[in-house]
Amino acid sequence: MRAVVFEDWKTFPVLKDVHKPTPGPGEVLLKVAGAGACHSDVAIFQDFDADFNPAGLSTGFILGHENAGWVDELGPGVHGFEKGDAYLVYGPIGCGRCKACSRGQDTYCENAATNPYAAVGLGRDSGMAEYVSVPARNLVPLGDADPAIAAPLADAGLTPYHAIKLATPKLAGADKYALVIGLGGLGLLGVQILKAITGATVIATDMKEDAMAEAEQLGAITVAGGDDQVAKIREITGGTGVDAAFDFVGVSGTIQAAMQSMAIGGRMTVLGIAGQPYEWTFYTTPYEVELTNSYWGTIEDLHEVAELFRVGKIEPKVTKYPMDKALEAYQDLVDGKVSGRAVVTPNE
Amino acid sequence: MRAVVFEDWKTFPVLKDVHKPTPGPGEVLLKVAGAGACHSDVAIFQDFDADFNPAGLSTGFILGHENAGWVDELGPGVHGFEKGDAYLVYGPIGCGRCKACSRGQDTYCENAATNPYAAVGLGRDSGMAEYVSVPARNLVPLGDADPAIAAPLADAGLTPYHAIKLATPKLAGADKYALVIGLGGLGLLGVQILKAITGATVIATDMKEDAMAEAEQLGAITVAGGDDQVAKIREITGGTGVDAAFDFVGVSGTIQAAMQSMAIGGRMTVLGIAGQPYEWTFYTTPYEVELTNSYWGTIEDLHEVAELFRVGKIEPKVTKYPMDKALEAYQDLVDGKVSGRAVVTPNE
Amino acid sequence: MRAVVFEDWKTFPVLKDVHKPTPGPGEVLLKVAGAGACHSDVAIFQDFDADFNPAGLSTGFILGHENAGWVDELGPGVHGFEKGDAYLVYGPIGCGRCKACSRGQDTYCENAATNPYAAVGLGRDSGMAEYVSVPARNLVPLGDADPAIAAPLADAGLTPYHAIKLATPKLAGADKYALVIGLGGLGLLGVQILKAITGATVIATDMKEDAMAEAEQLGAITVAGGDDQVAKIREITGGTGVDAAFDFVGVSGTIQAAMQSMAIGGRMTVLGIAGQPYEWTFYTTPYEVELTNSYWGTIEDLHEVAELFRVGKIEPKVTKYPMDKALEAYQDLVDGKVSGRAVVTPNE
Amino acid sequence: MRAVVFEDWKTFPVLKDVHKPTPGPGEVLLKVAGAGACHSDVAIFQDFDADFNPAGLSTGFILGHENAGWVDELGPGVHGFEKGDAYLVYGPIGCGRCKACSRGQDTYCENAATNPYAAVGLGRDSGMAEYVSVPARNLVPLGDADPAIAAPLADAGLTPYHAIKLATPKLAGADKYALVIGLGGLGLLGVQILKAITGATVIATDMKEDAMAEAEQLGAITVAGGDDQVAKIREITGGTGVDAAFDFVGVSGTIQAAMQSMAIGGRMTVLGIAGQPYEWTFYTTPYEVELTNSYWGTIEDLHEVAELFRVGKIEPKVTKYPMDKALEAYQDLVDGKVSGRAVVTPNE
Repeated sequence: MRAVVFEDWKTFPVLKDVHKPTPGPGEVLLKVAGAGACHSDVAIFQDFDADFNPAGLSTGFILGHENAGWVDELGPGVHGFEKGDAYLVYGPIGCGRCKACSRGQDTYCENAATNPYAAVGLGRDSGMAEYVSVPARNLVPLGDADPAIAAPLADAGLTPYHAIKLATPKLAGADKYALVIGLGGLGLLGVQILKAITGATVIATDMKEDAMAEAEQLGAITVAGGDDQVAKIREITGGTGVDAAFDFVGVSGTIQAAMQSMAIGGRMTVLGIAGQPYEWTFYTTPYEVELTNSYWGTIEDLHEVAELFRVGKIEPKVTKYPMDKALEAYQDLVDGKVSGRAVVTPNE
Repeated sequence: MRAVVFEDWKTFPVLKDVHKPTPGPGEVLLKVAGAGACHSDVAIFQDFDADFNPAGLSTGFILGHENAGWVDELGPGVHGFEKGDAYLVYGPIGCGRCKACSRGQDTYCENAATNPYAAVGLGRDSGMAEYVSVPARNLVPLGDADPAIAAPLADAGLTPYHAIKLATPKLAGADKYALVIGLGGLGLLGVQILKAITGATVIATDMKEDAMAEAEQLGAITVAGGDDQVAKIREITGGTGVDAAFDFVGVSGTIQAAMQSMAIGGRMTVLGIAGQPYEWTFYTTPYEVELTNSYWGTIEDLHEVAELFRVGKIEPKVTKYPMDKALEAYQDLVDGKVSGRAVVTPNE
Repeated sequence: MRAVVFEDWKTFPVLKDVHKPTPGPGEVLLKVAGAGACHSDVAIFQDFDADFNPAGLSTGFILGHENAGWVDELGPGVHGFEKGDAYLVYGPIGCGRCKACSRGQDTYCENAATNPYAAVGLGRDSGMAEYVSVPARNLVPLGDADPAIAAPLADAGLTPYHAIKLATPKLAGADKYALVIGLGGLGLLGVQILKAITGATVIATDMKEDAMAEAEQLGAITVAGGDDQVAKIREITGGTGVDAAFDFVGVSGTIQAAMQSMAIGGRMTVLGIAGQPYEWTFYTTPYEVELTNSYWGTIEDLHEVAELFRVGKIEPKVTKYPMDKALEAYQDLVDGKVSGRAVVTPNE
Repeated sequence: MRAVVFEDWKTFPVLKDVHKPTPGPGEVLLKVAGAGACHSDVAIFQDFDADFNPAGLSTGFILGHENAGWVDELGPGVHGFEKGDAYLVYGPIGCGRCKACSRGQDTYCENAATNPYAAVGLGRDSGMAEYVSVPARNLVPLGDADPAIAAPLADAGLTPYHAIKLATPKLAGADKYALVIGLGGLGLLGVQILKAITGATVIATDMKEDAMAEAEQLGAITVAGGDDQVAKIREITGGTGVDAAFDFVGVSGTIQAAMQSMAIGGRMTVLGIAGQPYEWTFYTTPYEVELTNSYWGTIEDLHEVAELFRVGKIEPKVTKYPMDKALEAYQDLVDGKVSGRAVVTPNE
């Protein structure tokens, strides 16, 4: 079968023929409907090397950690799946036997240091290929929903959902405000999820005007960047500040803008992986604001993301690429030319 | 001034002239804009007597526990209020020095047994009169919002708000369902509050068709009573049941219907004071469903209710009665003729 | 190998030779160290039949749902276990692919109706035998702790732990009280768990004096039954009542005693499966008390129970029976002769 | 009466005769049993001036914000207090009418900017005098407990209690760890409170050996400072880190040590007001750790602190100074000579 393979550090991936996988014990083989191309894939083949390798990856695997497809074959010991049914893939793969994995939070697997890989597309062969084999417990049912459109939800939906769900206690009540910084794939799904599962007023910001326009169409109030950004956000909230903020960028400026916009007792989550520093001090932080980060989500979260998609409350914006243009998808991503999420559809 | 006075057990209240109150230390005199007439007032003058007196009332006080008005005069030691500003009145009045009162939850005052009264309109003179004097801490600002329309929020808004807020952890997430049983003044505000502060799908039921129609206009899905009611509710939820239910009636049948409609781990709150029994058993209850009750709310809750009203997210349906028709308001209530909430407007 | 088999309704189990199991894909074969005999096993072979079968069981399986042992052989696709290491077995076995199973809560599996069995010892062959094969994810590490003593934790530890953990928000703070009703195997572990993970004062009650004495040794204050029981409990709490209660009996009298002992806003969990009714009414329930039930627990909970055992904070009281006296264990249980938990040790 | 008055910036306070206060409407006059001398008092008279005035103070008031005493006289409108009964004083004084004040959290009063003072001893005359007048709602009953010993609880007990209570969800369960950094008056009470209201293992650290010894006597495991401190803390926790940390110092080094010691999802609260910066980054923070601060507490919290003291679960270590040695108390504090908390006892 054809697959997009990451072969070596600082090398553009290649489209090549590889062996079709056979599902092992407890695994399910999916015929791939869609595989999302993510900025973190670009970081892997462009920025990482043996010396800078924060995810502890080896080289030589099929890329892509946002997958969905149709059941094709069941490995030994697997029951309860019908051939042709559509499923979304939970990407992280932990040891499966520790406390974190027992609650479906493979992202925080206690044995991460000794696991062979962290996730499909992060060391383990993934779904930017005609077929992918994954553990049965990593499959989340899509029902009648389109798996090609659903694929980006596996990261761009799950990551904001997890962080937002942890912040729901802050957003439960009257007159609550949520701030979304960075309106790319994750941020725009973040706006949709906030509108779907909370009663909060959503304030959104980005440097791109078209992204701001999209956020407004999704029901957010937008505030442009600039010196008066924090003042404007505070004004919208009647002075008290936002109860939860989600920073999908993670540079010093965005973290600072969010922290200055917080209400007492609010929750500020950095999701963007730019990794820039923020100078926290006791006196410049509104009391009891929680500064935190988060990473991807749990299998249960992904079930709930799929539910939101199935009932039409959230929908990723997708640009499809056929298999033979898969590398073009990554090139467009590198060139900043993709509108929404680039999804490779190997079997369309 | 004129006032509606409850003079004796099982006696219809009278409209009579009484002394205008003087605000004591820590109190504020309000010129009354609106005073809601509530079914529990009717219970007081119709059903209670020396032998059946669950609220521990004495006779001889001005009725009505849903009040709003304009600041008229400040008692000794009171600051920070401007004459003419509109406020909503938190009715319960506890000892003011116990742990419960310290968090603004006078409803659960630890010294209730020795307090002279439980609330304005429940032993203490209330606002179905031209003026009412209340402790300054019981006032919640209304800003530019109309205090006559706001008056019913003091009970019909606060009671569902408090119960809903306690249930928000059950309603935080995708694909959540809330059930409202009984679509009178409290139930219809309950529907509005659920729509305003959660992302849950709201299912509502009542025996009156026009109440059901109103709930639908407010965004609820309605289900009529009858043998298949529980089955229909379960069907709407995809089989899993509702995550929170609010029973504003409280007869055996409504409690049972709600309990049979619950999802595992849901929260069922009885707010209606009909007081009928429900036979709970281990095996007929979905696992981890919480059966509970609740009573009125906290001052902080009322601040949040007022915020929802000020921004237009909730609005009680009101029928106004001038002061000289105040007794007619109660008679209409007794006769089941009031559409929405009857509000007496003594200064209009 | 030898095993205790439940062969038919209303028939005492038999000790017989059966085939040693082979671990399937994703499974691990354990050499059994201990298998607890539980009152619910007795209910299965004594009370159940084709007409009364609340757990939806078929006949013909090896009994016992409290197991621990040493890794003996790994099925296909299993990694990360060393032969000879000691593990405790999480008994419930759901579909493994639904939302509930994804968070390790197989007890509430969404596909329970179509699963072939509910748990080891509840339809599926269990560990009252020399060997047992279980899914790898159902294993919880015991480290150096004795697996024969640990076995009862799989139910008698997990069930109270789960209910207590859900009640911890009620027990967080100064001057909190927990009530434990019924001081058998589960109740005495409940007392230990409350002492270990909360700062609450524990009040315990039972009809047996020796059970009360044991609870006192574990740090509980005990209150005997009788007409003044509720008054005594309230007195210990300074009048306010208990913040959480755990009823391991579940007859009408115990539920009523607990409900009358509750503080406002407390949580009352029925764990005992006697199944008797309680007449709930609005006016006889302290405000905001949550009446609920719960069933067994999650894999994550069992990890935490094992941690408490490994550090010596909890320990079940055990009477060991060698394999050839396994049926005697059940007969003693029937006859009320067992002190603590009867544990069959097939390989000792 | 005699009182310790802060007269001007950067000027040592003076002991002088002033008018005995008269309780205003809603106020109670206490005969002072004890008034704690706190490091933040020293900051006020030593470090603050017109240019550096973070608390927005004016000059010219009686110092001390940790007070307890006996009821002496009731102001107009006050009921429910008996002359001679002992009470602890909640120091913060907000507007009394905003949402934060309504829940007894005057520390976060929404009208702080326009209030005349923030607390007794912070702008308003306090209890380092023979008498002090405070609002009735600020009084918390001490029963038979000694008010002179209780006085420091008003800050040194309340501040850690509030932060610990917000962290209790992180400490509910098996195998939980709490870290206390800085074992002065607040830190040692923090250790006691953690032992009293949670089941967590408490790890404590300080640079002073005698403070470490005291913490050990209170049940903490201590870890000395140094390069291997974080490694040692992690080792105690079995590698996973602490679930909650409380930094009563707040310099860069302590914040960093705490952050490096955290478990995934833990809560790190800075309470010490040194105000030094910490460089937060996405990659150096364990996932979902909440970095936060907090300030004093609520009236309800203080009720709970008083309960812990009344039942003997916590006790501040106190050195008493008679009124005529009140200035010596402050001098000893400046000189680092006080063991435990210096409490001035004006009426002993």
